[in-house]
Amino acid sequence: MELKDRYYNIRQHTEAICSPLQTEDYVVQPVVDVSPPKWHLGHTTWFFETFILKPYFMGYQEFDPDYNFVFNSYYETVGARVIRTDRGNLSRPSVIDIYRYRAYVDKAMYDFLCTEPSAEVKELLILGFNHEQQHQELLYYDIKYILGNNPLMPVYSKDYVSLKVEHIDAPWISIPEGVYEVGHTGDGFCFDNELNRHKVYLNAYEISPNQVTNGEYLEFIEANGYHDFRHWHMEGWGWVNENKIEAPMYWHLVDGEWHNYTFHGLQKLNLHDPVTHISYFEAYAYASWRGMRLPTEFEWEIAAPQFKWGKSWEWTESAYLPYPGFNKAPGAIGEYNGKFMVNQKVLRGASEATPPGHERITYRNFFPTNLRWLFNGIRLAR
Amino acid sequence: MELKDRYYNIRQHTEAICSPLQTEDYVVQPVVDVSPPKWHLGHTTWFFETFILKPYFMGYQEFDPDYNFVFNSYYETVGARVIRTDRGNLSRPSVIDIYRYRAYVDKAMYDFLCTEPSAEVKELLILGFNHEQQHQELLYYDIKYILGNNPLMPVYSKDYVSLKVEHIDAPWISIPEGVYEVGHTGDGFCFDNELNRHKVYLNAYEISPNQVTNGEYLEFIEANGYHDFRHWHMEGWGWVNENKIEAPMYWHLVDGEWHNYTFHGLQKLNLHDPVTHISYFEAYAYASWRGMRLPTEFEWEIAAPQFKWGKSWEWTESAYLPYPGFNKAPGAIGEYNGKFMVNQKVLRGASEATPPGHERITYRNFFPTNLRWLFNGIRLAR
Amino acid sequence: MELKDRYYNIRQHTEAICSPLQTEDYVVQPVVDVSPPKWHLGHTTWFFETFILKPYFMGYQEFDPDYNFVFNSYYETVGARVIRTDRGNLSRPSVIDIYRYRAYVDKAMYDFLCTEPSAEVKELLILGFNHEQQHQELLYYDIKYILGNNPLMPVYSKDYVSLKVEHIDAPWISIPEGVYEVGHTGDGFCFDNELNRHKVYLNAYEISPNQVTNGEYLEFIEANGYHDFRHWHMEGWGWVNENKIEAPMYWHLVDGEWHNYTFHGLQKLNLHDPVTHISYFEAYAYASWRGMRLPTEFEWEIAAPQFKWGKSWEWTESAYLPYPGFNKAPGAIGEYNGKFMVNQKVLRGASEATPPGHERITYRNFFPTNLRWLFNGIRLAR
Amino acid sequence: MELKDRYYNIRQHTEAICSPLQTEDYVVQPVVDVSPPKWHLGHTTWFFETFILKPYFMGYQEFDPDYNFVFNSYYETVGARVIRTDRGNLSRPSVIDIYRYRAYVDKAMYDFLCTEPSAEVKELLILGFNHEQQHQELLYYDIKYILGNNPLMPVYSKDYVSLKVEHIDAPWISIPEGVYEVGHTGDGFCFDNELNRHKVYLNAYEISPNQVTNGEYLEFIEANGYHDFRHWHMEGWGWVNENKIEAPMYWHLVDGEWHNYTFHGLQKLNLHDPVTHISYFEAYAYASWRGMRLPTEFEWEIAAPQFKWGKSWEWTESAYLPYPGFNKAPGAIGEYNGKFMVNQKVLRGASEATPPGHERITYRNFFPTNLRWLFNGIRLAR
Repeated sequence: MELKDRYYNIRQHTEAICSPLQTEDYVVQPVVDVSPPKWHLGHTTWFFETFILKPYFMGYQEFDPDYNFVFNSYYETVGARVIRTDRGNLSRPSVIDIYRYRAYVDKAMYDFLCTEPSAEVKELLILGFNHEQQHQELLYYDIKYILGNNPLMPVYSKDYVSLKVEHIDAPWISIPEGVYEVGHTGDGFCFDNELNRHKVYLNAYEISPNQVTNGEYLEFIEANGYHDFRHWHMEGWGWVNENKIEAPMYWHLVDGEWHNYTFHGLQKLNLHDPVTHISYFEAYAYASWRGMRLPTEFEWEIAAPQFKWGKSWEWTESAYLPYPGFNKAPGAIGEYNGKFMVNQKVLRGASEATPPGHERITYRNFFPTNLRWLFNGIRLAR
Repeated sequence: MELKDRYYNIRQHTEAICSPLQTEDYVVQPVVDVSPPKWHLGHTTWFFETFILKPYFMGYQEFDPDYNFVFNSYYETVGARVIRTDRGNLSRPSVIDIYRYRAYVDKAMYDFLCTEPSAEVKELLILGFNHEQQHQELLYYDIKYILGNNPLMPVYSKDYVSLKVEHIDAPWISIPEGVYEVGHTGDGFCFDNELNRHKVYLNAYEISPNQVTNGEYLEFIEANGYHDFRHWHMEGWGWVNENKIEAPMYWHLVDGEWHNYTFHGLQKLNLHDPVTHISYFEAYAYASWRGMRLPTEFEWEIAAPQFKWGKSWEWTESAYLPYPGFNKAPGAIGEYNGKFMVNQKVLRGASEATPPGHERITYRNFFPTNLRWLFNGIRLAR
Repeated sequence: MELKDRYYNIRQHTEAICSPLQTEDYVVQPVVDVSPPKWHLGHTTWFFETFILKPYFMGYQEFDPDYNFVFNSYYETVGARVIRTDRGNLSRPSVIDIYRYRAYVDKAMYDFLCTEPSAEVKELLILGFNHEQQHQELLYYDIKYILGNNPLMPVYSKDYVSLKVEHIDAPWISIPEGVYEVGHTGDGFCFDNELNRHKVYLNAYEISPNQVTNGEYLEFIEANGYHDFRHWHMEGWGWVNENKIEAPMYWHLVDGEWHNYTFHGLQKLNLHDPVTHISYFEAYAYASWRGMRLPTEFEWEIAAPQFKWGKSWEWTESAYLPYPGFNKAPGAIGEYNGKFMVNQKVLRGASEATPPGHERITYRNFFPTNLRWLFNGIRLAR
Repeated sequence: MELKDRYYNIRQHTEAICSPLQTEDYVVQPVVDVSPPKWHLGHTTWFFETFILKPYFMGYQEFDPDYNFVFNSYYETVGARVIRTDRGNLSRPSVIDIYRYRAYVDKAMYDFLCTEPSAEVKELLILGFNHEQQHQELLYYDIKYILGNNPLMPVYSKDYVSLKVEHIDAPWISIPEGVYEVGHTGDGFCFDNELNRHKVYLNAYEISPNQVTNGEYLEFIEANGYHDFRHWHMEGWGWVNENKIEAPMYWHLVDGEWHNYTFHGLQKLNLHDPVTHISYFEAYAYASWRGMRLPTEFEWEIAAPQFKWGKSWEWTESAYLPYPGFNKAPGAIGEYNGKFMVNQKVLRGASEATPPGHERITYRNFFPTNLRWLFNGIRLAR
């Protein structure tokens, strides 16, 4: 596909995700990890304006210099930023103004893309595409949180189609011990944290062809798993007790029956769906209670061609660390991945919120161990 | 005026205050003391629905039972409430739904008021009017905070007319010592905290005919008043240092010149205007630096007929305490005033945000000592 | 008594209070309001060294210049101080070093007092005596807290004699309305906050000849008083719920029977003793539940000659505010009382921990509304 | 050495570490990570009493049943524990009582060890020895913190002999890529987290024969390293700014010259000593600023035979994770290591506070990334 068309498609997809929202839904930030949808709309636009139009498109007139202050995220290089917890306090720029901002920047980008960009710019563009796709996924998380924590529990969209997952009635996959290669290969795009394909030594292991289901997870709850410290890390145990966690996020016991909030509103819990919205702490405790463990990210990567994945990001036991030879790019772009490489866990796979074509077997997603609003899940190893 | 007309006028005034807002401005809650404007719109409506329509209007159909959960404020008697800090997280009900709620309840109220209500209901109605007027004033505070803390500092309305205040070139007012009567008198409405007119003994005192101006307050700043602990209460000194307070709220030093945010946007500071948006701690420190003091609420009430007031609520030295014989009404209505009678200070007068006719010489406004987003001010005594 | 003898007696009394302690008990600070006993020993000594010996005793050699840093309390004028919460982290100076410091300063004071001091110094001396007496009372509070919150609940001293209180079988005391005079009178010592005797107007009221007993308070607990928001201030209700308060401090339900920690260790609750270790919030809620109220400090002062007091400080409904004409003394001594005159409540009377001769009918004690470690109590009015 | 003698020696060594302390130094807990020395003395004793004497020594009489409550650490299996932050509030049991407790248990242990224990008990004994040795090391950290944060900065002991470290003038050590074996081997004691010797694949790397010195680290400070976010993890950058970190712990700029607190008191900074008391965040930022990195724990283990180590624990880039096949032991003993395997970093080597014979090339020490009170350091890799 031509760059211009890819740009158009990706930008459209972002707006399509937001189309079922009411204006008010764009504005709020119920917790620090969630960003208001209007912020995502502005921030992804700011990325193209800041890293492509301003440096490379001669004569480009900035839409509004104050927007840099509002839509910068964590890029310390680029200037002062709105403290992250403050995003939900900003009623202006209004949603309409932000859509105008998008249209203005899109128009400039189309003009700019009429001539073939340099290799350097092309690389930035592709990064911008992937950046916006990451925010598409975050938009789903954040919208679900905003609607699912509202006492009225409104439906996001009746037309939302959830990914169906079939249980595979197959034995566990066995991988023999030995030296394997992991990391990105080929010419396609990848993030800097996947680069430097390298060898790792794996011991023999087995990995499940299926993700853990709601029904299986319910057994853990009913076996009192949330109240038995033996299954938990000490930090996880503190987290469970401090936050009085008793079930995955969005689960509600209504008149003795388990329900969960979905994009179609509150629904009876489907026991055959993969469990999701659990923290790493819970994934670990569940595995421990089963007498098993989570796979490492390398075990996952080597076995992945032999199972189905993509319903929800799968917690691994691996800490998010640099691959051998990893180097941050200079400048703001270099802040993309490297500076998060401490105290987070790698998730592998993809989720139903991942934009089509954005998934990759070497993709290293990462989150702190206590977060549950993302679309995540569990696959066991032993 | 007929009750029906008063009802109509008051309800209209609330909506008029909100008319310059964009939808997004109705939603946010930047700090815990501020409520989203849409919450005020819903809560004042809920008051009439809960305390008048549901108990007294036969056949009335509740608009939406979930709204009780969302729009109850602090009335512990009536049911579970949305924790106060959560108000800014609720994108639904939408602004349009809340206006529909208002219209629905208003329609029912008009029908209900076609027949003369009982004395008991009339009393509740009048309380409801005064309750909504209090929220009209809060709406101004909250809107100013929401817009004035936005990095774009938008104008609320070019048509907003600020109260002009003339400096009175007169000597200080002298009141001789003796026994005086304070508290509400006459047939008009008052809140329960003004009842029980009673005698107090006052020592001789003098009180200024003018409020302290921005210019006078600036002298305190320039004399390093914010950095000299001798003028401050210990608690105030802690507050100043912890919050790095250097000037009244909404003041900004731009290129060496003081500006302040107003409903017309950021403006050069008018030195002749009464200083406003200062905490009790600052009012006290200012008075102390001048070698004077704040009046008590009784000193204020006795002298008030001799000076102009109404530009901004005036901090007094009086703690907010019950008058002799004060009794809480039974039920939810009784929660109105009495339960706040600890660790707050009385403010007397009114502000330019006070709805016309709502002010009263015996009116006892009250706030905690650290709050600045209300429209307050300083009058000195000695 | 000669000044020298008074000095000796007061200094001895402080050490007598500490004599049953083990070295470790001198060191800890379990909560911010409690100071380690060794800090009291040092701080009261520092007061004499700083305000008398250094300025007035020619040739006096400071014991250790670092001690100013360690033993200053809240005197912002005198120099940097050890942040209050840090006091419990300081293992040095050791207890023995502090006793050596006391002996060194005492020796110098005896020498200094061999010649009759000037009137100005005499005034400071008397203030120093009263200051040390206040710390003697605090020592009892703090020691009780340190031992009573230790899981071993050790006995302070078998020889400690608790004040006995007889129930007076008399009708409530009636005071007619009128103008009364309050505040200190006569030549004796008083604190600056009692000065300026002045007139107040009191409405007719009745006040109980007895303090509320443990048995009476237990009725409030058993009537579910801690779980009925109607009796509480909103701030008090928040405090109760946040801190899960269910009974006075030091009360423990052991095998279904109420006990409380005393200086003799854990004892069965004596139902006839005055209730103590309750916050103002609890005192107010109790009174409110009884359909009565707490007296104001002026009601207390006028009626006090007609009842027995002195078992425990009695919460009043009065906020701690300056008397008419109150002025802070210049310098560090001026920080003594005035800067606390906001958001605190007055307590009147005295407690069994008050040093003999330190009590006074016009004495204005004051504490924030949530504190319970002091020896306080309830007397009802109506 | 006979078990009895080893027991005696280890127990003696603990007390020798404490012998220079004054009673007060045993009691305080200035921050949550530090435990009062008296708690270490009690807790290590409780370990032998709880896991050996009570289950295996017939007729043993517990010293005091309340001590279980006080000296349990994190062993959720064994019963309620004193919340960690509360340890510094406990003045009782007194230091003398704890020494009596030690003597009582030691006596019983000598009696018990007169007969050869079973293999199972012997294993517990050896674990107890190593457990006490770990607390010996912590005692040094905690004592240094307690004294070094006291404004008087007292000397721990003039007789304390600090480990001397010679700079080795040798080229960096080169390790070729390939499969290596890591993990414990042989019959000696090791912790469960070192077990399961297994293969890893290492890329070629170089590692420094020396630790980073104070002088080298000073260059980082002087190059403004603490103020340039590019060298830091985002979490580290937040930590630096929130805590206003400008130098390693215990460093003080006195009259323009760098000093640091040592067991001999405040000393001029020795530029040739290895830098210590830096967090992982700082170690990472320093390496990043040099354009290098920290070694992984496996890189360290493979290269360690070629360099000198043991002056201070060396931060590695490795997250603290289970080795393949790791299994927690059942019961309280199983809580020892496994439950910490999240969000911590591995340190390798030993420090001058490590008891002789306790160090091991496969030893996996671990701490959260922000802690600095331990004796740690930096070795670079590339």
